[in-house]
Amino acid sequence: MGKRVAYQGIAGSFSSMAARALYGSGITPIQTTRFREIFEHVVSGSADVGVVPLENALAGSVHENYDLLQEFECYIVGEYYCPVHLHVLGSGPIEKVRRVLSHPKALEQCSIFLERHPEITAVVCSDTAAAALQVRDSRDPSQAALASEEAAATYHLPILARSIQNHQDNSTRFVSISAQPSQCETPTKSSIVVSLPHEPGSLYKLLGEIASLSLNLTKIESRPILGRPFEYAFHIDIECPIEQTSHLREASARLARYASVFRELGLYQAKSPLTP
Amino acid sequence: MGKRVAYQGIAGSFSSMAARALYGSGITPIQTTRFREIFEHVVSGSADVGVVPLENALAGSVHENYDLLQEFECYIVGEYYCPVHLHVLGSGPIEKVRRVLSHPKALEQCSIFLERHPEITAVVCSDTAAAALQVRDSRDPSQAALASEEAAATYHLPILARSIQNHQDNSTRFVSISAQPSQCETPTKSSIVVSLPHEPGSLYKLLGEIASLSLNLTKIESRPILGRPFEYAFHIDIECPIEQTSHLREASARLARYASVFRELGLYQAKSPLTP
Repeated sequence: MGKRVAYQGIAGSFSSMAARALYGSGITPIQTTRFREIFEHVVSGSADVGVVPLENALAGSVHENYDLLQEFECYIVGEYYCPVHLHVLGSGPIEKVRRVLSHPKALEQCSIFLERHPEITAVVCSDTAAAALQVRDSRDPSQAALASEEAAATYHLPILARSIQNHQDNSTRFVSISAQPSQCETPTKSSIVVSLPHEPGSLYKLLGEIASLSLNLTKIESRPILGRPFEYAFHIDIECPIEQTSHLREASARLARYASVFRELGLYQAKSPLTP
Repeated sequence: MGKRVAYQGIAGSFSSMAARALYGSGITPIQTTRFREIFEHVVSGSADVGVVPLENALAGSVHENYDLLQEFECYIVGEYYCPVHLHVLGSGPIEKVRRVLSHPKALEQCSIFLERHPEITAVVCSDTAAAALQVRDSRDPSQAALASEEAAATYHLPILARSIQNHQDNSTRFVSISAQPSQCETPTKSSIVVSLPHEPGSLYKLLGEIASLSLNLTKIESRPILGRPFEYAFHIDIECPIEQTSHLREASARLARYASVFRELGLYQAKSPLTP
């Protein structure tokens, strides 16, 4: 039996594609409708790992999953950049479409298309593939889904318009999560969340520790801490070449000293968005 | 005749509330359905100013407006933190509701409520107030809108459930934009976009210039540059006390030297999220 992998959505969803890219086609899938359930499966041991989206090139961070990473005792153990092309799937023709169903993040990635088609109402679905399934079952040519080519093939739906996302270069970064930290001996990427005292230069000092170790910052995002105005949490990813893997552990140790709150979300092998 | 202020949405939308908070109740409103139209009105001179949301405490940055700020020759001239409470508005009762209409960012801010009510389908609208108007006109108790108290009063819709956004402390930061830079002589906030050479320490050096002037970083967010993997743009906001206003201009001059691309989006008076 393959690894039990929890992810959101059904066959043909981008999460399902990411789960197979990370763990092969022989996995035992555990399909959920909510991100929270993935974390629950992982911490309870009913899944070996989970796969969740963290950020999309067009629509930005999935804040809910960052929050869940902080709430649950889980670790990032791997990542995968999934190319994201969104197509209009329906029984057609496109001129008859009056409703498109999709995930909110997918609708956001197609905002230009939706603006150009004011006759089309956008309806929220739990995932892109569930939207395709619902459209197939409706047998109604006025309904369409925004989903992947794989969803089109899985649910035998014609593609009425191709790659309608706002920009041709589009990808979503997925990470795999586990109840145990990665056993990888040569991690090349570290994801951390810190909060800092609200004083000039505090972030600068923290980044100085990263720079002095010649590590590369590949993501930084400040987030307001709810209920505490003027205080921020920072989501930070740092990378290094494999021969400097020891620097990543050293960076964590130093950053933990500076930050008022420090959480290492994971130490793992970086993957390139170019060669997924 | 009052200032001509362009914003997205109709009476009762959060943008409409922000426009009045910034420019008074005597404005001449120019209501649009798309953010892009606001920028077009401002650069063509058919509006004196525009008002756009840049970030929400729960749902994060409105990337579309950051992109539009870079595309159009516009300047940020002011800001306002609008408290955001989202209520379920409908002809009731709540048990009969099967569809809720709202703006995608508002739906995202109410994701926990929507997860708890799988019997309710979420439908995308151009703004929260338009959703309320559509629900009022439908006279259908199975339809509801997620919108403000002001929208409830404007469209005479009962509130079926109060403040259902994911967290009680919630606000959206709006900025006003103009074709001319702010004439304010004592700006206390600067919003910039930079891109940096992809080498270890480049962001650290840039933040060093900010720290050495004792300026405070209140936002930083890396964004992938589409079509150029491994390159990032950084959205940065810096603030200072009014007596150090000259430091803001000095910081811009220094940062422009470090960055491979530099754009100052505006120098303006900072407003506090506590005392809007």
